[in-house]
Amino acid sequence: MDIAILGGTGDIGRGLALRLALDTDHRIRIGSRDAPKAEASVDRYRERLSSHGADAVLSGSTNEAAAAGADVVILAVPPVHVRDLLDGIEEPLDEDAILVTPAVGMTRTDDGMRYDPPGVGSLTALIADHAPASVSVIGAFHTLSAHRLADLDADLGFDTLVVGDDPSAKDAVMELADEIDGLRAVDAGGTGNAAEVEAVTPLLINVARENEALRDLGIRFV
Amino acid sequence: MDIAILGGTGDIGRGLALRLALDTDHRIRIGSRDAPKAEASVDRYRERLSSHGADAVLSGSTNEAAAAGADVVILAVPPVHVRDLLDGIEEPLDEDAILVTPAVGMTRTDDGMRYDPPGVGSLTALIADHAPASVSVIGAFHTLSAHRLADLDADLGFDTLVVGDDPSAKDAVMELADEIDGLRAVDAGGTGNAAEVEAVTPLLINVARENEALRDLGIRFV
Repeated sequence: MDIAILGGTGDIGRGLALRLALDTDHRIRIGSRDAPKAEASVDRYRERLSSHGADAVLSGSTNEAAAAGADVVILAVPPVHVRDLLDGIEEPLDEDAILVTPAVGMTRTDDGMRYDPPGVGSLTALIADHAPASVSVIGAFHTLSAHRLADLDADLGFDTLVVGDDPSAKDAVMELADEIDGLRAVDAGGTGNAAEVEAVTPLLINVARENEALRDLGIRFV
Repeated sequence: MDIAILGGTGDIGRGLALRLALDTDHRIRIGSRDAPKAEASVDRYRERLSSHGADAVLSGSTNEAAAAGADVVILAVPPVHVRDLLDGIEEPLDEDAILVTPAVGMTRTDDGMRYDPPGVGSLTALIADHAPASVSVIGAFHTLSAHRLADLDADLGFDTLVVGDDPSAKDAVMELADEIDGLRAVDAGGTGNAAEVEAVTPLLINVARENEALRDLGIRFV
């Protein structure tokens, strides 16, 4: 498959790009608002990957070019930029594409992070409302530590929750997640259940802040 | 310590009573609106415990009598009954008591469970607002499977998140949780972080519903 990671130069974008390139045979496209920035990231990712013996197919471009004709498009950008990004890729997006959203609306307070969803209930629901009608929207990869993903020597050993209303698109994203060594995809139901999934991200940030021994943590269902 | 479990005849009350009686030396008081019902539960719990070689100190009474002078009072009742319960125990409650709330406001929909907190943001915050001023309120035990707790042959192997604003009360509840074999207490910060903790409960119900292999599940931070 062709997998586009939009915002692929950011923290979670880098982590997903490195792990997908290391553990799968898919072609990974790194998108950025700035094409040279995407290309520079690809050079760095290639260097990291070759030192781990991976011969990955990676390319860098604008977000719009990365999205064009991709099978899976991961929206690895902050929530505030999601609407603009969607507007920009509506034209080039393949009508059978699967959009994947790992982003979470949060507010930082003195005491900790608070889940702060949009009015429709979750960012996943907001994106589903604004994506082209033919495209499937799946929420996934919210709870993954970007730092632990990017450390290719680190074992993961955690789960990622997956939500969405299109069963075949959800299955495809769950299979993709399961291809990453040490990651297990766990079905959390339809888009209506996305708020409870997204709310785990501020929880993890709060737990990391309170526990020295739980930096770069993830969750596992046992 | 004297630990009162109010609503101790219900599912989560039974699970906590059995595990605390099995794994600790604390005196466990089972409270119910109906004293004979509490006493009947105590008889059943004793039978279960004696078949596992535990010589536990258990007693049954009304919620008010169970709360009187107890060191830790666990409010194991549905959210809708919490305010009435608090009104009833305000008088007998020891001024140094620690109130522990495991309850979560939820709404069942056709698609899954939704987190449905009170207007102040979380049930933990609501109870903190309405408890006597001298009493500390700690949120804990939200994510534990009542069925797995009550199956004394089952390994737990999961975490419980603990929130609250009084550090010494929180430490006491974390120590108590850690005394249960296979349970690990994880500090999730102050009462302001309670919503993200409580929201894990509907998530677990949704995950259990979608995954045959994950019945009676819990979470672990890894």
